[in-house]
Amino acid sequence: MTHLYENIALIGIGLIGSSIARDIKAHGLASKVTISSRSAATLKRAEELELGDAYVADAAEAVRDADLVIVSVPVGASEAVARQIAGSLKPGATVTDVGSTKASVIAQMQPHMPENVHFIPGHPLAGTEHSGPDAGFTGLFVGRWCILTPVSGTDAGAVARLRDFWNSLGSKVEEMDPVHHDKVLAIVSHLPHIIAYNIVGTADDLETVTESEVIKYSASGFRDFTRLASSDPTMWRDVCLHNKDAILEMLARFSEDLAYLQRAIRWGDGEKLFDLFTRTRAIRRSIIEAGQDTAAPNFGRNGAAPELKAGE
Amino acid sequence: MTHLYENIALIGIGLIGSSIARDIKAHGLASKVTISSRSAATLKRAEELELGDAYVADAAEAVRDADLVIVSVPVGASEAVARQIAGSLKPGATVTDVGSTKASVIAQMQPHMPENVHFIPGHPLAGTEHSGPDAGFTGLFVGRWCILTPVSGTDAGAVARLRDFWNSLGSKVEEMDPVHHDKVLAIVSHLPHIIAYNIVGTADDLETVTESEVIKYSASGFRDFTRLASSDPTMWRDVCLHNKDAILEMLARFSEDLAYLQRAIRWGDGEKLFDLFTRTRAIRRSIIEAGQDTAAPNFGRNGAAPELKAGE
Ligand SMILES: NC(=O)c1ccc[n+]([C@@H]2O[C@H](COP(=O)([O-])OP(=O)(O)OC[C@H]3O[C@@H](n4cnc5c(N)ncnc54)[C@H](OP(=O)(O)O)[C@@H]3O)[C@@H](O)[C@H]2O)c1
Ligand SMILES: NC(=O)c1ccc[n+]([C@@H]2O[C@H](COP(=O)([O-])OP(=O)(O)OC[C@H]3O[C@@H](n4cnc5c(N)ncnc54)[C@H](OP(=O)(O)O)[C@@H]3O)[C@@H](O)[C@H]2O)c1
Repeated sequence: MTHLYENIALIGIGLIGSSIARDIKAHGLASKVTISSRSAATLKRAEELELGDAYVADAAEAVRDADLVIVSVPVGASEAVARQIAGSLKPGATVTDVGSTKASVIAQMQPHMPENVHFIPGHPLAGTEHSGPDAGFTGLFVGRWCILTPVSGTDAGAVARLRDFWNSLGSKVEEMDPVHHDKVLAIVSHLPHIIAYNIVGTADDLETVTESEVIKYSASGFRDFTRLASSDPTMWRDVCLHNKDAILEMLARFSEDLAYLQRAIRWGDGEKLFDLFTRTRAIRRSIIEAGQDTAAPNFGRNGAAPELKAGE
Repeated sequence: MTHLYENIALIGIGLIGSSIARDIKAHGLASKVTISSRSAATLKRAEELELGDAYVADAAEAVRDADLVIVSVPVGASEAVARQIAGSLKPGATVTDVGSTKASVIAQMQPHMPENVHFIPGHPLAGTEHSGPDAGFTGLFVGRWCILTPVSGTDAGAVARLRDFWNSLGSKVEEMDPVHHDKVLAIVSHLPHIIAYNIVGTADDLETVTESEVIKYSASGFRDFTRLASSDPTMWRDVCLHNKDAILEMLARFSEDLAYLQRAIRWGDGEKLFDLFTRTRAIRRSIIEAGQDTAAPNFGRNGAAPELKAGE
């Protein structure tokens, strides 16, 4: 049987890496999958879960025969991994990643990549608030976008092959300029996470309302933010450090808009508030129509569990 | 058969009023339910849905025989409704409401209430982002909190009876000081909604990222905010106007904390970011343990629909 890539090496085997591993196995997408992870504990866990065919502590060793190398580590670790693997990459191999920021990953990895290797940065827009090899699952990428941000001059055939690979995981693939990717993600993902972390922190610090009250009455809206705010701190620290400019730009816009809204509240400007609260409804409808979220009230949690009913 | 209240009048028959109506009917909690709504269209719809036994345009008329009157209108309409019904309330009747703010509702309604009536403000912490009589459903209040904020001197028997009524709808009941209620709700509900409205507005205004990109890639976090931001603008305008002080207090805290976080991003203070992103995880765990949210990743949306998979 012939595959898009015969040998695949996965460097990093957390939520994203292990989901890719599970899909490769489920769909028989390679003849050999070699897994490497920084810690012995995670590597051992990957083996227990039977996520691959070989388990190798040394990343350089792991990539030696690989036709495709997928780096799935926090974006801040990209350069170190690139350095590690650069010397043992197979000529003609494709190296890609799944990091949530792209310009920084390119700046970190590109300089280390040998001429005879196709380096094609990528970012699957799929995940959950959980992390580690146990959090992954088959089908995570089905119906979701994967954005590739190849630098100019990249071999078109290599890009097409990587597109095919993501398609075989069920993803839809889009190409984008890395700087634009970072701006888009700053608003659709990074700002929401940062705001969620912030509001949960604010609630935690209040003296007038106790933490147990916040927890007890959280279904009124607050709980939605706690999901995003329970995401992996290392991953999100790295995103903030490595997409700084775009995030600061979005934060400035957000704060400016919030000051305007706050002023409308202070001065009791009902008309302005009504307008602001009206224009946001159309986006929700479009998102549901685009199949990007469920139309069920409360994300369908009303019937989720006997003790778990609607909020607000 | 004897009921806690023989005749119940529902003034306002949107999401909350109609859910109460459906529960009363489903559990046989009254011998007669009289429904009134401001507009002829909504009243007609309530009749089509067979939500009650009598449909009366004039609220004063609707409450005449009622042992329990439940006012379920936007909080800004509380005084007008109180004025309307005050003259025709039955001696010994209980008047309650479901408004999302309490100090303002008391200030609006209490002065109009006759001496011989029990006025007991309430707020069921249950709802969805939808509104109107079609959005209601049986069981909305099951397992959810209902907060009563009786003013001092309220007849204990009348309060106990109203508690029993909410219990019979499946709610857990808590009593709270109205000002404290408004502070608690400002952080667990009002601030989250305002922030959600704001971030969706910010995204909508960007020139560098198109609206279609925001929609397409919304599953990365943004979509969660659009749910709250699609809530009824009238309701939320009124909440902002009628819980101004507590909301402004929470907004100030939020902005202060955000400035601190922003500064950590600007100066690349990874340690501070890591700390901030770590302390918020415990709250999520507690909320799940308290049965206030699902533990399933992505609120369980991964398997929600074939075309609807995980985000981030
Ligand atoms: N989570 C999401 O929703 C999501 C979605 C799209 C993209 N991403 C991106 O995908 C990448 C991986 O995220 P994830 O959620 O899979 O993370 P994860 O579950 O926490 O797994 C991280 C993996 O990277 C390794 N690692 C951590 N720090 C490292 C370092 N300093 N040097 C080398 N390896 C290191 C870990 O190894 P050990 O366990 O052995 O230490 C583990 O194998 C990140 O760049 C993230 O931005 C995440
Ligand atoms: N939605 C939630 O999640 C939620 C949760 C807990 C508490 N609450 C509170 O419950 C109350 C009702 O909310 P809802 O979601 O049920 O609203 P809704 O679905 O929009 O229904 C509102 C009802 O109030 C009537 N109404 C609107 N404006 C009015 C006015 N100016 N004067 C008199 N009647 C008026 C409407 O009558 P017409 O349709 O005939 O105009 C309708 O019967 C609000 O105070 C809200 O704060 C809401």
